[in-house]
Amino acid sequence: MTQMLKTHDCGTLSKANVGETVTLNGWVQRRRDLGGVLFIDLRDRSGLVQIVFNPEFSGDAHGIADRARNEYVLAVRGKVVERDAETVNANLPTGEIEVQITELEIMNPAKNPPFFIEDGIDIDESLRLKYRYLDLRRPEMQRTLQLRSKAAKVFRDYLDENGFIEVETPILTKSTPEGARDYLVPSRVHPGEFFALPQSPQIFKQLLMVGGLERYYQIARCFRDEDLRADRQPEFTQVDIETSFLSQDQLLDLMEKLVVRLFRETANTEIPTPFQRISYADAIGKYGSDKPDLRFGLELKDVSDIVAQSGVQVFASVIAKGGQVKALNAKGCGVWSRKEIDDLGVFAARYGAKGLAWITYKDGELKGPIVKFFNEQELELLKERLEAEEGDLLLFSADTKKVVADVLGNLRLKIGKQLGLIDESQFKFAWVVDFPLLSYDEDEKRYVAEHHPFTRPKEEDVHFFDTDPGQIRAQAYDLVLNGYEVGGGSMRIYKREVQEKMFAALGFSPEEANEKFGFLLEAFEYGTPPHGGIAFGFDRLVMLITGRTNLRETIAFPKTASATDLLTDAPGTVDDKQLEQLSIRIAVKPPVTK
Amino acid sequence: MTQMLKTHDCGTLSKANVGETVTLNGWVQRRRDLGGVLFIDLRDRSGLVQIVFNPEFSGDAHGIADRARNEYVLAVRGKVVERDAETVNANLPTGEIEVQITELEIMNPAKNPPFFIEDGIDIDESLRLKYRYLDLRRPEMQRTLQLRSKAAKVFRDYLDENGFIEVETPILTKSTPEGARDYLVPSRVHPGEFFALPQSPQIFKQLLMVGGLERYYQIARCFRDEDLRADRQPEFTQVDIETSFLSQDQLLDLMEKLVVRLFRETANTEIPTPFQRISYADAIGKYGSDKPDLRFGLELKDVSDIVAQSGVQVFASVIAKGGQVKALNAKGCGVWSRKEIDDLGVFAARYGAKGLAWITYKDGELKGPIVKFFNEQELELLKERLEAEEGDLLLFSADTKKVVADVLGNLRLKIGKQLGLIDESQFKFAWVVDFPLLSYDEDEKRYVAEHHPFTRPKEEDVHFFDTDPGQIRAQAYDLVLNGYEVGGGSMRIYKREVQEKMFAALGFSPEEANEKFGFLLEAFEYGTPPHGGIAFGFDRLVMLITGRTNLRETIAFPKTASATDLLTDAPGTVDDKQLEQLSIRIAVKPPVTK
Repeated sequence: MTQMLKTHDCGTLSKANVGETVTLNGWVQRRRDLGGVLFIDLRDRSGLVQIVFNPEFSGDAHGIADRARNEYVLAVRGKVVERDAETVNANLPTGEIEVQITELEIMNPAKNPPFFIEDGIDIDESLRLKYRYLDLRRPEMQRTLQLRSKAAKVFRDYLDENGFIEVETPILTKSTPEGARDYLVPSRVHPGEFFALPQSPQIFKQLLMVGGLERYYQIARCFRDEDLRADRQPEFTQVDIETSFLSQDQLLDLMEKLVVRLFRETANTEIPTPFQRISYADAIGKYGSDKPDLRFGLELKDVSDIVAQSGVQVFASVIAKGGQVKALNAKGCGVWSRKEIDDLGVFAARYGAKGLAWITYKDGELKGPIVKFFNEQELELLKERLEAEEGDLLLFSADTKKVVADVLGNLRLKIGKQLGLIDESQFKFAWVVDFPLLSYDEDEKRYVAEHHPFTRPKEEDVHFFDTDPGQIRAQAYDLVLNGYEVGGGSMRIYKREVQEKMFAALGFSPEEANEKFGFLLEAFEYGTPPHGGIAFGFDRLVMLITGRTNLRETIAFPKTASATDLLTDAPGTVDDKQLEQLSIRIAVKPPVTK
Repeated sequence: MTQMLKTHDCGTLSKANVGETVTLNGWVQRRRDLGGVLFIDLRDRSGLVQIVFNPEFSGDAHGIADRARNEYVLAVRGKVVERDAETVNANLPTGEIEVQITELEIMNPAKNPPFFIEDGIDIDESLRLKYRYLDLRRPEMQRTLQLRSKAAKVFRDYLDENGFIEVETPILTKSTPEGARDYLVPSRVHPGEFFALPQSPQIFKQLLMVGGLERYYQIARCFRDEDLRADRQPEFTQVDIETSFLSQDQLLDLMEKLVVRLFRETANTEIPTPFQRISYADAIGKYGSDKPDLRFGLELKDVSDIVAQSGVQVFASVIAKGGQVKALNAKGCGVWSRKEIDDLGVFAARYGAKGLAWITYKDGELKGPIVKFFNEQELELLKERLEAEEGDLLLFSADTKKVVADVLGNLRLKIGKQLGLIDESQFKFAWVVDFPLLSYDEDEKRYVAEHHPFTRPKEEDVHFFDTDPGQIRAQAYDLVLNGYEVGGGSMRIYKREVQEKMFAALGFSPEEANEKFGFLLEAFEYGTPPHGGIAFGFDRLVMLITGRTNLRETIAFPKTASATDLLTDAPGTVDDKQLEQLSIRIAVKPPVTK
């Protein structure tokens, strides 16, 4: 191997080094030949520097350099000199100097890469993923991975300083009752049995609290085998946290300080505290979403009372059926063309809207197809409730509470973007609290846990177990940032009698409960402390901090939306001998959705 | 939930708190009733403190406390008071004070635990693993997990300070050519195809170097599906490191400083540097092992030249067949009984010895069955070579180089322990270097890679590829501590022509090479920097730092030697619907080795 090992990083050279002889190792970013003098931009992790080969001082090196092409790996030695004023490159941190090369070794040649190694390239992502090792050379990818590494360190430093112990929990674990999305791993030693990859360390972190660790954390890999949306990965990373002997307020406060520290040290911004806390009910009511983007207003207004008696049949009937009518005032959109408004209707339909009623405020009066069905007083009340002004567009959704929220919540986001109401530079956090503990599953005809069966109900709601379980609010919370859920958790049930009420509400018999959660329930019998925790979506946080819109940009070797690794071509076939040793056989059925 | 949340940790209270009213949360360690006054040792993560319930000042709390049993979770409030001189407990950090309780809430009751929550319990490990959440409450387990967490932080801090970037590599990856020990994961989206869990991030960390990251690390979970020995786990943790543009010496120096820092901050000892470096050949030659315990001497000596002509037939014939005869001087064991010496023979047989010849030095002369086959001069030379003195026992092994090393190497360890030559308080590090690049596989009738096919040969040995590949030494190194391998790695091949020679030596056709390592070889075409790395066995390091002898003691939720989790009872059966979705079927064959 070469004796010319780097003494300096390319990107850190400056006037301060003028006169020094330096050895650099790096990649050829570009080369130009100006009248026999060769100029090469040499790149390493730290950045670029211009190196010069001139027959006058470079000797043989000049001839060798002439063979170098993009992405060749070079080892060079030479003298740092100041550039003459007219050749200074103000766009380059090292632009005031260059290195006059006297020795050169080509450490390795390179084939011509399939795309340029520079920021902002516009090429098919699948090509970037196939050649990820080249994609990672691009400065923006290096910056992202460096920031991701830094973010992990900030989490760890803060949690360490606050008495949290990092504990690794198993990856080879047991399939959970909700195992539908588990990745399974056949066992060689136990034919016919399987491990499951964890969807989260939930059970183990609660056991650690039973084990008296009091404060646990782990930056944990989790797995979910499901049809992937653009923003999902089969394996993802969460910052997993559990604590004992804290109230919800104490925990959220501790976590706010963590988030503030994270954004201070990675995004260089100061997040004001305390974070806004908004109840699930209000989030749905005002924004039609449990992860509202609070960087702008455009709140939804319930107008059911006003329109109930109106001549608009669909409004009246929806309300009669226990539904609701809500409206959104798209400020200043009254001037939109009929086509533009119809497009909103098409958009709304995607979220289940059967129609999208609208009224514009033009020339001092409300106009639109449905206006004639209202009387003067109703129109006045609508104006008032929706704070309608000249030029506004009022959009109405009438349906079940859920559909109305989806329709108007998404319209709100669309219009907010369209009207440029969103300050992209802002990080707007909020805790969404008081989630419902249970939701009624129409298919299974029973209540199911919104979070999981160990979520603690609010003390004051426990009595609803006997009367109206749907009313019970949970001690559960999500951390929301700019319309994304970036964290979520809950306080856990730690009292046996409450746990039994919960299982009863879920329709589990004691036997079922035991079968599903036996060892955990047994553990709870041996002196369980009050405990609760949270998990942050690490990939998504990095995505938002770096201003990316795609989780794959934050992961060194991500998988595609079809859960394949284009670089290693995983998953792949294996030979029968392997399967035989695992006591399984492939049983592929007629074409499966691929 | 209680309003009595801890204001202090039990174990940290001292005279400084006398007079303060404190709220404590913790577990009942033990309780005694002295004439109606209740004394409870309350335990939390920080330690124990004595709390007192006296009808005089405890009111109702006294009655409630009377119901508390071991491992009940209590919330108590009371006043810290100084103990009278005669009741001070010098064995307890908080022994100078106690807390007079005025309020008590039983947060949770507890069943009587199956074993005592204290150090040094002597019970069946399987019971501890089934109730791991109780086992973890024991102070020694808490200390071990805290130290493990601390060790991880020291690694990260050092690597971060030295410009290493933490990168997470995939867990769902592709089965490797040596896939025999891969855990496989069937893919739902791609019927009939499988992911594999990584045995190490080897390929990805090399790709990160191709990607220009220059310095990478990860505390990585790795997986190996094999018959487990006592000191193996199906999932284990390694500190995985890779660097570019460094020489082997630069890398080892950087790693020595890391190890020194680790032991300074976790074991509170100062490891002298530079670490001893011993060649593989010397390690085998002197200690019969490539991971020698250097805390004591007892070196092996080759006596082939001396005994070749002796009348001992087996010696002569072994040497004639290209084998060797080596001896070990068990200082002072000449006094051992015939029975004790015969036991050594039985022990030696376990390692392949067909017999164990021996000579004692008694009453000024060498004695034993084989002495008569030597002439005076040979006996003199033996005395000299083996530095034999009155009372010594000389043990001989004659066989192939490998068997001799195994036999005498293990005898050396056994006798070293027996004679108490090992200073258990010492941490004796060494780098074993110059491993052979290839070894000849008699079954496959070809050379196989000792480390892996990307290990870089020593420059000066490359020419042996054409003449005697077995002679080639690798730029590979192991870090050895007290007879354990705690780390290992190598510089990697980065030049195409060398890689081709390597594959040729392994008997791969270009097609085979491509099939096995295609995408990696392609990556190497695009400008690969010189790179190399190392991986530390994190579980084993923690084991040695904490003076444990069993890896399971260092892992929160370990698996047994039969790869089961006694707590969650993993692996387990899954329902057919799950398997169907994964397009696999169970094919259990007649009883498999379990």
